[in-house]
Amino acid sequence: MIDLLLAQKKWVPWMRRSIQLALLGEGRTSPNPLVGAVVLDSTGRLVGEGYHSGAGKAHAEIEALAQAGDKSIDGTIVVTLEPCCHYGLTPPCTEAILRAGLKRVVIGMVDPDPRVSGNGISRLKDSGLEVLDGVLKNECERINREFSFRVRNGRPWGILKWAMSLDGRIGLPNGCSKWITNESSRDLVHQIRSKCDAVIVGGGTVRIDNPLLTSRGKSNPEPMRVVFSRSLDLPKSANLWDTKIAKTIVAYGPDANEAFFSDLTEGPEKMALKSNDPSELLASLAKKGCNKILWECGPVLATSAIEANCVQELVVFVAPKILGGKSAMSPLGSFGFESIKSTYKLQHSLLDRKEQDLFWRLLF
Amino acid sequence: MIDLLLAQKKWVPWMRRSIQLALLGEGRTSPNPLVGAVVLDSTGRLVGEGYHSGAGKAHAEIEALAQAGDKSIDGTIVVTLEPCCHYGLTPPCTEAILRAGLKRVVIGMVDPDPRVSGNGISRLKDSGLEVLDGVLKNECERINREFSFRVRNGRPWGILKWAMSLDGRIGLPNGCSKWITNESSRDLVHQIRSKCDAVIVGGGTVRIDNPLLTSRGKSNPEPMRVVFSRSLDLPKSANLWDTKIAKTIVAYGPDANEAFFSDLTEGPEKMALKSNDPSELLASLAKKGCNKILWECGPVLATSAIEANCVQELVVFVAPKILGGKSAMSPLGSFGFESIKSTYKLQHSLLDRKEQDLFWRLLF
Repeated sequence: MIDLLLAQKKWVPWMRRSIQLALLGEGRTSPNPLVGAVVLDSTGRLVGEGYHSGAGKAHAEIEALAQAGDKSIDGTIVVTLEPCCHYGLTPPCTEAILRAGLKRVVIGMVDPDPRVSGNGISRLKDSGLEVLDGVLKNECERINREFSFRVRNGRPWGILKWAMSLDGRIGLPNGCSKWITNESSRDLVHQIRSKCDAVIVGGGTVRIDNPLLTSRGKSNPEPMRVVFSRSLDLPKSANLWDTKIAKTIVAYGPDANEAFFSDLTEGPEKMALKSNDPSELLASLAKKGCNKILWECGPVLATSAIEANCVQELVVFVAPKILGGKSAMSPLGSFGFESIKSTYKLQHSLLDRKEQDLFWRLLF
Repeated sequence: MIDLLLAQKKWVPWMRRSIQLALLGEGRTSPNPLVGAVVLDSTGRLVGEGYHSGAGKAHAEIEALAQAGDKSIDGTIVVTLEPCCHYGLTPPCTEAILRAGLKRVVIGMVDPDPRVSGNGISRLKDSGLEVLDGVLKNECERINREFSFRVRNGRPWGILKWAMSLDGRIGLPNGCSKWITNESSRDLVHQIRSKCDAVIVGGGTVRIDNPLLTSRGKSNPEPMRVVFSRSLDLPKSANLWDTKIAKTIVAYGPDANEAFFSDLTEGPEKMALKSNDPSELLASLAKKGCNKILWECGPVLATSAIEANCVQELVVFVAPKILGGKSAMSPLGSFGFESIKSTYKLQHSLLDRKEQDLFWRLLF
C-alpha cells in the first residue's frame, strides 16, 4: 500500500499538468469529458502534450502521442481519464497507446462510461503494459463532475441561477426586473452560460423579459437556448427566434398548441415531449450531447425543476437593493413544507462579491 | 498646513490608544458617547489612562487625570472627544483639565452636543492651553456614529435585522421559522443585541414567536425590550412580560385598547404614543437614553420603520436553505416602487460567514 502511494506520488506533478491541459477544452467537449495527457520518454523527459478540444476531434492521448512521435518508445503516458477502448467518433486510444510502444500508463480516474469503465485498463494490462490508476483521482473527477453525472444519471448536471434583492425579490410587482444586479454580475452570468451546453427558460421569461440568453460571444458556438413551454402560448416575435447567433430549441409538452409553429417559418427547432416533466426535457438534452445546463427560469419552472431533482447546483446573486412588494416575485414557489427540518439544505461552495453585489454558489 | 499635519501625526499613536480605551465602554455608555483619554507627563511618558464606563460614572478625562495625579503638570491629555464644559450628571471636564496644570489638550472630534460643540475647546484655549483637534477625526467619529446620530436627529440609530432562506423567506407559510439560521448566527444576534440599547418587535412577533429578546447575558444590564403595538391585542402570558431578566416597554398608539394592561399587574412599562409612527416611538426612546436600537420585527413594522427613515443599517442573515411558499413570509412588504431605479440602494459594510450561513451588514 505504501509502495503504491509512493509510486503514485512520483506522477502527481505530471498529472497536474495533464489536468491543466484538460481544462483548456472547458465548455467545448460535451458530450465528451475533459481530458488532458502528457507523454514522457524512457528517461522521464516531457516529449508530448495534448488535450481533447471537442467532440469528433482527436482525443488527448492521440494529440500527445503525435507530438512525441518515436520518443514515446518505452516511455510513459500520464492521462486524466482511462483511455477509451471502443470505436466512437474516433478509434480507440488503447490501440494507439499499444502501437506507440509505451511501457507505462498513468491514469487519473476510471471512465464512468459503461463502454469503457475498466475495459480500457484491462486491455492495456493484458497487453503487458504497466498501469497505475487513481493518481489525483479526486481532482480528475472534479473537472468531469458534470460529464460523470450525465453518464450515470442519463441527464445533464443542472445549475439554477437567480438574481434577487436583499429582501428576496426577483422583480417588482409590476414585473420590472431590469436591472437588479450590476454589470459585473451580469457579465459573470454570461461567463457561466459560456461553460454550459444549454440555457433553459420557460414561456413566461420569453414573454416578460424577451432575453437573448447568449454568453455575449464568450463561447463559440454559443450554448443552445431552450424554451420549455406547456402551452406554446409564446410571442410571435422574440429575440430567441433569431437563430443566427445561437441555436434555439422550443420544447413542449402534450397539452401545447402546435399552431404556434405555423408562423415560425425558420429558426427554432421543435422538441415534442410526452410530459411536462423537467426530467424528460433533460433526458432529451442529454441525448443531444448536453453535460451541463443552466436553468434561468421563473419561479414556477424553477420549483418543478428542483422537485424533479433536475438541479444539482445553485447560483444566487444578491444585490444590495430593497424592492418590497406584496405579491409573489420570489425566486421559488411552494414545496408544501410544514417544518424547517424538511426544507432543502444546501452546501456552501463559493462566496464572492461583484462590486456591491454578492454571488453565492451552493450544491444541493 | 503641513506644520499642523506634522503636529497631529505625533499624537496619532496616543489617540489610537485612547480609542481602544473608549471601546471598553461599548454598549454601556448610552445616552453618553464612548470616550477614552490618556495623560502624558511633561517628558511625554504615559502617566494616566481612562475611559467612560457608563452614564453617571466618571468621564474618561477625570479617570485618566486621577491616575496621573501630580505628574500631569505641564503634560498633555489626548482625548477622543472634546471635553465637556457644562454641568450634567458630573461637573465639567474642562475645569478639571485646567486644575490639573496641563499644557496641552489633543482632541479627536468636536462634541456634536449643542451644549458643548466647540465651547469646550474655546474654554481651554481662552485659558491659555494649547489645543490641537481633529487627530484621527474619522476614527473617533466612527466609534460614536450612533451617539452623534441621536444628538443630531433626536432619535437613536436604527438597525434592522432579519434572517432568511436562500429564496428570501423568513418563515414557512404556516408561520414556522425555528430555526432558519444556525446556532453561530443566533449567537451573533445575541452579540448584536448586547451592543444595542433597545430591541423592538411588533405585536405579531410576540404572538407568533414569544421571544426572549435578550443578549443571553452578553450585556448587563440587558437591552430594553420594546413591544410596539397598534392594537394592544397581545397575549396575556408572554416571555416578555417577565421583567426579572430585562426591562420591557409596551408602546402603543392612540387606537389601542388599554384594557390589556388591567391583567398585567406588574412588569412591563406603559408608553402611550400620539401616533403609530415609528419615529415618534424612537424619539421617546431617545429621551429614555437610547443611542442605538435594533428592529427585530416582522415585515409590516419593518416596512413602516424603513419608510419613516428609522433604519440606518441592515443586518441580514442568509441560510443555505430553500423554504419555498406562495404566501407572504418575505422580510418586507410593499413600498409601491414602480421601477428598479426608485428602489432603496444600500452600501456594503461587512460580509462574513457563520459556518454555512451568510451574514451581511449594510448601510442605508
